[in-house]
Amino acid sequence: MNFSHESLKEYVSEVLQKVEVSEKDSKITADSLVSANLRGVDSHGVTRLQIYIQRLQSGAINAKPDIKIIEESDSVLVLDGDDGLGQVVGAKALELGIPKAKKSGGLYIGVKRSSHFGTGAFFVKKGLEQNLITYAMSNAPATMAPWGGKEPYFGTNPYAYGIPAGVNKPIILDMATSVVARGKVILAEKRGESIPEGWAIDKEGKPTTDSKAALEGSVLPFGGPKGYAISLMIDVMSGVLTGAGFGPHINQIYGDYDKSQNVGHFFQLIDVNKFMREEEFKDRIDQMINEIKASSKADGVEEIFLPGEIEENIEADRLNNGITLPQDVYEEIKQVGEELGVNIKEYQNTLK
Amino acid sequence: MNFSHESLKEYVSEVLQKVEVSEKDSKITADSLVSANLRGVDSHGVTRLQIYIQRLQSGAINAKPDIKIIEESDSVLVLDGDDGLGQVVGAKALELGIPKAKKSGGLYIGVKRSSHFGTGAFFVKKGLEQNLITYAMSNAPATMAPWGGKEPYFGTNPYAYGIPAGVNKPIILDMATSVVARGKVILAEKRGESIPEGWAIDKEGKPTTDSKAALEGSVLPFGGPKGYAISLMIDVMSGVLTGAGFGPHINQIYGDYDKSQNVGHFFQLIDVNKFMREEEFKDRIDQMINEIKASSKADGVEEIFLPGEIEENIEADRLNNGITLPQDVYEEIKQVGEELGVNIKEYQNTLK
Repeated sequence: MNFSHESLKEYVSEVLQKVEVSEKDSKITADSLVSANLRGVDSHGVTRLQIYIQRLQSGAINAKPDIKIIEESDSVLVLDGDDGLGQVVGAKALELGIPKAKKSGGLYIGVKRSSHFGTGAFFVKKGLEQNLITYAMSNAPATMAPWGGKEPYFGTNPYAYGIPAGVNKPIILDMATSVVARGKVILAEKRGESIPEGWAIDKEGKPTTDSKAALEGSVLPFGGPKGYAISLMIDVMSGVLTGAGFGPHINQIYGDYDKSQNVGHFFQLIDVNKFMREEEFKDRIDQMINEIKASSKADGVEEIFLPGEIEENIEADRLNNGITLPQDVYEEIKQVGEELGVNIKEYQNTLK
Repeated sequence: MNFSHESLKEYVSEVLQKVEVSEKDSKITADSLVSANLRGVDSHGVTRLQIYIQRLQSGAINAKPDIKIIEESDSVLVLDGDDGLGQVVGAKALELGIPKAKKSGGLYIGVKRSSHFGTGAFFVKKGLEQNLITYAMSNAPATMAPWGGKEPYFGTNPYAYGIPAGVNKPIILDMATSVVARGKVILAEKRGESIPEGWAIDKEGKPTTDSKAALEGSVLPFGGPKGYAISLMIDVMSGVLTGAGFGPHINQIYGDYDKSQNVGHFFQLIDVNKFMREEEFKDRIDQMINEIKASSKADGVEEIFLPGEIEENIEADRLNNGITLPQDVYEEIKQVGEELGVNIKEYQNTLK
């Protein structure tokens, strides 16, 4: 089923408002989910609507959070998210943080008592709109063992950054610190397929290609012990330093349905103007981008991509041609709406 | 040949002073090199003395740099290193930055016109002494192709962090963003050995296990495209943002003997006290460390290590038992001293 991104956002926003989310907050959340679909990151798109609604209904996510600044200095901002939607809490953090960063030159923002925040790229883009170098990270429920271990301790803690450019598009990285997102293992298991070696270990800590055994075990960090160290760093900044949960002390999003997650986030904002004239920085980034794009390609490679460039290309396509949802995702979000009295077909004038 | 770390530092410092490096700066540099040997990172230890001396003599490294603040705001500090020794320039950046970070809560420090800075761990430890979460990164001469490419563009841009702990030792990560340090490929080539698959590509961009072909080609980033994205980020922060060289516009350390490198560094300092009471933070980090250490081990694994823990263990051993230099490294640093009128044997009372 094909939707324009505008109509899909309207539908998601309408459904969220039925469970007491304010119009403003529903639009932020819908924007995050549909933006993920636009960039081809469908695992973080509208397929999350059902679980968000379920958790909003149980009270595990607070529909009307009172987001408060609990610590503040020239370069630091710490927020208590009051168990709100991660997108809403994170957007508030950036709204408060951006003017501070422009004043001091740079900011470190910690957030505790938040929930699943969707994609890091969503927040990175908010900083990029203000020409700030922006980092977004979050911890997540445990699915990854420490290097050498067999019990999940870390989440697939995402790491995202955005670098403003001049005539080129900004560089946007948004990655999980596991080899692959756990969603791909879940999908393989559903389809009865095996997984490539190197993705996961079983519950004894042995490498496995059996998707079922992998789900009972642990996904592996990207790049071996180095990825483990980066995932740990993200948990320290997002969890330990903010006062949020960390390691296995974060509640599952699927499971623990009536418990708040206590996820933590960490953002960094850097004003390039405090380093050099913005135009000079952008010229230099453009030079780097152009040189990388023009670099000699390995045999069999058609194009060298900057981080996030493939997603940008998908977004350009989907902005024009709409977002085609798989039938099962369509049925799922349709049903969520039905149960709350929102008929997806009323949005059919915008369906293609 | 076995040295106590104190006597090795004295020797290195004495040799550096013969080429116009001040006593203070020579001690900083000797401390960095010998500290790398102590931690078992011998590739960044006293084996670098010869090239530093050569570059100091040619003027490519400035023995008496006038290190200046060129930009400053509450959260930002930018320094021009005047082509000084990277250790000296970096130490100055932290000396100026630490009180600023304690005041504002956090700092971003950029450095341009610097040289090879040794190990990131050396700087991270300076921040840790003040209970600051500390990041150190640097760009480096091009040896690594962008993902999909075959021409070196990025260096093996190191990434280091330090996290203060309470009763446990601090967590210190210090890693190259290549799969392995290029030095290991050089060593294999010297010995006529092949290298494992996944370390490098040849000059056509094809995977190779031939160490000679690898040296003519490019080392690979850790974790594939994700490591490429992290290496790029480090070059943006250290090079593009600071005004230093970036990508292939950094001069080689071995080669370009009379040209300054124009390496850039980037440091981040974060005062945990601005987030929560220091004691609480340290309790929480200790909890994380203890939980990871006690986590179930995969079959065949004897111990789960925190980042940097293996290096800490080596350091504890070498502090007690001294640093044993391979014969070729001993001969090399002995000769460097002889040419400058410093007799390594005069330090023999401290040799074991």
